[in-house]
Formats: sequence, structure tokens, C-alpha cells
Amino acid sequence: MNPELLISNRIRSTPFTSHVEACGVKAYTVYNHMLLPAFFRGIEEDYWHLCEAVQVWDVSCQRQVEIIGPDADKLVQLMTPRDISAAQIGQCLYAPLCDENGLMINDPILIKIKQDKWWFSIADTDVLLWAKGLATGFGFDVQVYEPDIWPLAVQGPKAEELVVRVFGEEISDIGFFRGEWNNFEGASMFVARSGWSKQGGFEIYVNDARLGRKLWDELFARGEDLNVGVGCPNLIERIESGLLSFGADATYKTTPFECGLDQYVSLDADIESLSINALRKHVPKTRLVGLVIARKVDLAGREVLAGKKMIGEITSHTWSPRYSVYLAYARCDLKEIAGLDELEVNTGTGSDNGQITELPFDFASLGLSGK
Amino acid sequence: MNPELLISNRIRSTPFTSHVEACGVKAYTVYNHMLLPAFFRGIEEDYWHLCEAVQVWDVSCQRQVEIIGPDADKLVQLMTPRDISAAQIGQCLYAPLCDENGLMINDPILIKIKQDKWWFSIADTDVLLWAKGLATGFGFDVQVYEPDIWPLAVQGPKAEELVVRVFGEEISDIGFFRGEWNNFEGASMFVARSGWSKQGGFEIYVNDARLGRKLWDELFARGEDLNVGVGCPNLIERIESGLLSFGADATYKTTPFECGLDQYVSLDADIESLSINALRKHVPKTRLVGLVIARKVDLAGREVLAGKKMIGEITSHTWSPRYSVYLAYARCDLKEIAGLDELEVNTGTGSDNGQITELPFDFASLGLSGK
Repeated sequence: MNPELLISNRIRSTPFTSHVEACGVKAYTVYNHMLLPAFFRGIEEDYWHLCEAVQVWDVSCQRQVEIIGPDADKLVQLMTPRDISAAQIGQCLYAPLCDENGLMINDPILIKIKQDKWWFSIADTDVLLWAKGLATGFGFDVQVYEPDIWPLAVQGPKAEELVVRVFGEEISDIGFFRGEWNNFEGASMFVARSGWSKQGGFEIYVNDARLGRKLWDELFARGEDLNVGVGCPNLIERIESGLLSFGADATYKTTPFECGLDQYVSLDADIESLSINALRKHVPKTRLVGLVIARKVDLAGREVLAGKKMIGEITSHTWSPRYSVYLAYARCDLKEIAGLDELEVNTGTGSDNGQITELPFDFASLGLSGK
Repeated sequence: MNPELLISNRIRSTPFTSHVEACGVKAYTVYNHMLLPAFFRGIEEDYWHLCEAVQVWDVSCQRQVEIIGPDADKLVQLMTPRDISAAQIGQCLYAPLCDENGLMINDPILIKIKQDKWWFSIADTDVLLWAKGLATGFGFDVQVYEPDIWPLAVQGPKAEELVVRVFGEEISDIGFFRGEWNNFEGASMFVARSGWSKQGGFEIYVNDARLGRKLWDELFARGEDLNVGVGCPNLIERIESGLLSFGADATYKTTPFECGLDQYVSLDADIESLSINALRKHVPKTRLVGLVIARKVDLAGREVLAGKKMIGEITSHTWSPRYSVYLAYARCDLKEIAGLDELEVNTGTGSDNGQITELPFDFASLGLSGK
């Protein structure tokens, strides 16, 4: 039996925790000091359901950091090397946050809510404190705080149909990584086409706990024929899709280039960003690659070897029931993997070989066809 | 069955995790993105053992934030309203960290390691990011980072005897909340008389993972006749002792005065602290009090009521097997509790009364004698 999570008030529950528990959550993780369900039926069973139907996810732990005031744009741009100057209201931008050395602090979605007002929908570090420290130190005219917002994600191939039934046809007009304010029971909630899966769907930025629970019930009531079910960010799906988890695959010790996030760094833009000069001069030391192992292994450690030399470590891994291979992300020494096709992983009883590949995995070019 | 904790690389393990698992850890919590054991045998069984013998705790999650450089003192003083100017090398100071509004960021132990070098042994928020933000914004000549240090606590009435056996007699000369560098197997480790219990003991700031495991084994080998056992911060003991948990009893929304930390705010000192002006003008709105309920209740919510009016909420609670009463901390509206002796708590089937008392609990004056 795996150790349980002892829940205390320090680990915040959400407006949906009672619903999640009534649905029989079997495992949690903790994210931004808040409960995040980790699986319900089982990771694999949840995976197939997510890919075939539609799930409602309590992702309240994607906390919002609001930056508002005359200096908001200035502070936001300092925090990220991605050029935000052309962002439109309602646009969502995936953006690394980096310090003066180009090292990552977080990888949130930045949402331009209106002129001089941004939300950072954050991964698992206290971006609030970094933003507050910078605002204080630079003497910026901004407010930085965590509003009472608890995102609910609706994900899966039938997500759009379900969200349309609840919010109306105009939801279909929302573009990818765009959001709009929509009405639910008289309250206005930001609804964006986004989410931490590649199965399609929306995130609803619930700003009223009671109405949020009503929305949850409504999604389940209206989606019965779509086989709607409870779910959560799914380990298998996110690795198959090449999504990063900050704290595992990207950390305080990595730069965006070392995480394959090159396209989110605006090296040529004329921006005032804390990290941009360091990133312009940066020579990556490591690289995050994919490993494909032909059989279901029990990893006996995180080490990745070339010959007998440790040249990297596994940051995330899972069995893929769709492709019948074991998948891993590995952070490797850039020089050491040059020219190599395969690496070894420890499996307790011995070692196994993993084929090196780019991320996200391109299963077709790997000769793998899914179930 | 309570939900398990799904462990991923995002939730960091420690140099002692394999030992902790071999000892049969039954529950974890997550603290500073790291595993913290929550109980082994059971919370109550762990409690009696802690109060009678000696326990070894993996508190690696008490991460250190190192602030080093010519402006270190200036930055540290900005972060806390406690006067640090007279701190001596080796001294440990419990100190609230507060923003410009006097609201708390964390409640670490500050350790003056040497001139221009401090460690913050932090509670569960990313103080690193706040310190980095301030240092950047103010342009201070300091480095701020998290060193590879994993504290091991030895707690309980027989802790001193055990630590003396491993480190030598001179350990006994270390005063309360003082620390010294001591030798273990050729490595120098900071050892302080401190810890998150009131049973006495030491914290060893392990700076070498391999030697740390050797130290663990040594503590167990030398302490057999002292009934040494594995343990962890214990819910019952810390509440009986009046210790606060940041994130539950103190939060971003409370000031030190609202948490009973008046003695750690140097209102009259001539210091440059971000929060001191706000705290000088501050009128507390809430107060953290103790509640003593005469029987073992099942709380059905956090609400605390006077008559039928909700005037506060429970932040932490436990059954006390020693005093045979139920204990709670409650954050209450200061005006509403004036003159009251009792408050009501919800128990599902009805309500129960709790006697209001100061924190830490003074069991003798409450007429309670312990087992």
C-alpha cells in the first residue's frame, strides 16, 4: 500500500473537493499548496476515458497571480523573455519566467485580461512572491495578489460539445489560446480554449465557489450522453503529448533552451526583460530528450547511461498503453549525447536501451501506430 | 481508505527517503515541494514515543535560503520586522517575514552563519523567490540561492544523550537556539539546539547526502538502549505545544500580531524593514486563540460560532490523548470574541462548546493534568 496524503489546512482544499471526493478520488498530489487529484479509477483507465469522451477537472491549483496597475506591462515583460508587446486582450501566452541568469522560475500561461491587467496561470512555484519582490524593489505602481479564482478544465474530444451546451454556441468561436467572458447563472467567467492535455477543451476561470459547484453539476447533467466523467491532468496523456511539468522536466536550474522552449524566447525583440541578455549569450549545457524503450520496464533509478557513464537523468516517465512502449523524458549532457541513438536506463535486474528522440514524441516517424 | 499521495519527480525526495520508506512511513505531506513524513505507526503512537524517548526526523523540507554578500544584512532586515542587528554568529532567530502591509510571507528561523551570510530555514512558501525579487529590484550586492542542505532533527527527552554519543560532549554546551559547526566523519555540519517540538533536541544541517545516511544509521545504532525510533513533526505534540504552521495558522492574510507573534516584532527599534511602518500603525482585526472542547468530537467544518453567528474559523485541531480534551486553534474576529468565554463548533450531529484560552495552552491553569 502506498503512503496516504495527510491532509491539513496548510494544503488548501478547493470549492470542488467535496465533489472530487464523492467521485472517489484515489490519489492526490499537492500543487501550489493545494489539492490536485492525481487519478480516480486508475491512471490508465482515466487515460482512455480522457482520450475518448470528456472529463471535468478540478485544476483550482492553477492559481492566478494578478498584476494590475500602470506599471503592469513593464513588470510582466521584465519577468519573461517572451515579447508580450503585441498581446491582445483575451489572449493566452505560454511563457517561461526567467531570472537574470536566464534560469527558469515557472512556465505559466499569461493572460492579458485588459489594459494594465494580467493573470499568470501558474505552475507549482510561488510566482506571487517573485512578482511582489520585484514590484517592491523596483518601486512599480502595481498591485500583485492572488484572486479567488479556481479553474475548472473540461478536456477531451467531446469537451467542445459539452461546453457549448452549458455556455452557448458562441463558445465555438473562441480560438486556440484565446478566452472570452461568458455568462453562467448571471456571473461572468473567463472561458479559454486551453488546458493541460492535447485532447482539446476549455478552462473556465471560476470566480464564485457556489456557482462553480453548480457549474460542475450542470456539466455532469448535460453531458451524460457524452459519457462525461471526472478526471484530472493525466500522466500518460501529458507525456505522450510532450507537455512539461515544472519542478520535474524544467527547474530553477534550467534555461528555456534546455527545455526545448526556444520558440517562447524573443531573442530578437527589443524588450526590457531581466533574462534576455543572459539568454542571448547562453550556451545550453543540457537538453531534454525523449527516450522510447521497447518494453514495460520498472525503472530502478533516474540515471541515464551511455556505455557505463552517467550522462543524464530521467525527469518523467510512463508506460504508454496506446503505443505499447515505455516513454521517458531525460535531461542529458548536450555534449555527451551528440551522435548517439540510444541510451541505457537501470531496471534493477539490469539495464534496457532507450531510443533517443525529439520532444514531443513523433510516434509516426518512430514507426509506432497507436491503438 | 484515504487517498494516497502520487509521488512524481516534481515532489522532491530527500537523501533519507529510502530510509523513511524502509521504516514503513504510512503518510506523507508535501512541504516546500518535498516529501515530509506525516506519521509512521500512527499519529498518537508516534506522539507517545516522541514524548518518552528520542526520534530521528527527516525534515529535509525545511529548505535553507542562503543570503550572502555585502548587502546580506540589509536584505535580511528589510524582510523581517524583527531587529537582527545584535544577532551573533551561530544564533538562530525565529522571525516573521512581512511585506509592506505587515502581512506575513513566512515564519522561518534565521541563522547568522557568519558575517554577511545568513540561512533562512523556511516554512512552506518559496521565500527564495521573494528574496530574489527584492535583491534584483533593489540592486543589492548579494547572492540568493538554495544550498544542498537537508536538516535531520533529533527530538525527544533523550535527544541530547543520543546526539552527545555521536558528536561528543561539547554538544551539551550549545545553548537554546544556538548552533555550532561540528565534525561528523570528517565533514563539518552545523548543529543547533532547536526543532519543531517542545520535547527538546537538535537539528543537524546535513550538507552531504551520503554522510547524512551514515549519520542516520549511526543515530539508530547508538540509540538502541534509548529506544530511538523514526518520527516526524507530530500534529498532537505541536498543537499541545502551541507551535504555528504557516499556511494554516498564519497566512499571507495575517499580521504577526494576529498570530500572537508580538514579541518578534521590534516596534521600537530603529530598523529599515519593509513592514515596520505598517506594523506600527496596525490595528489587528483577528486573533488566534485556543479552544478546549471537553470531549472527542468529529468536526464537521471549520466554522466557529458565537450564538448563531460565524465569528471565526478553526485553523488546526487534534485530540489530545494526554489531557483527554479536543484542542483547536481558531482565528476569530477580535471584536466579536471580546468578553466571551466559549464558542461553538459544528460536529455534524449538532454543536459543541469550546472554552476560549490563550496560546500556547496553559493546561495547569485550565485545570487539566496530563497522563
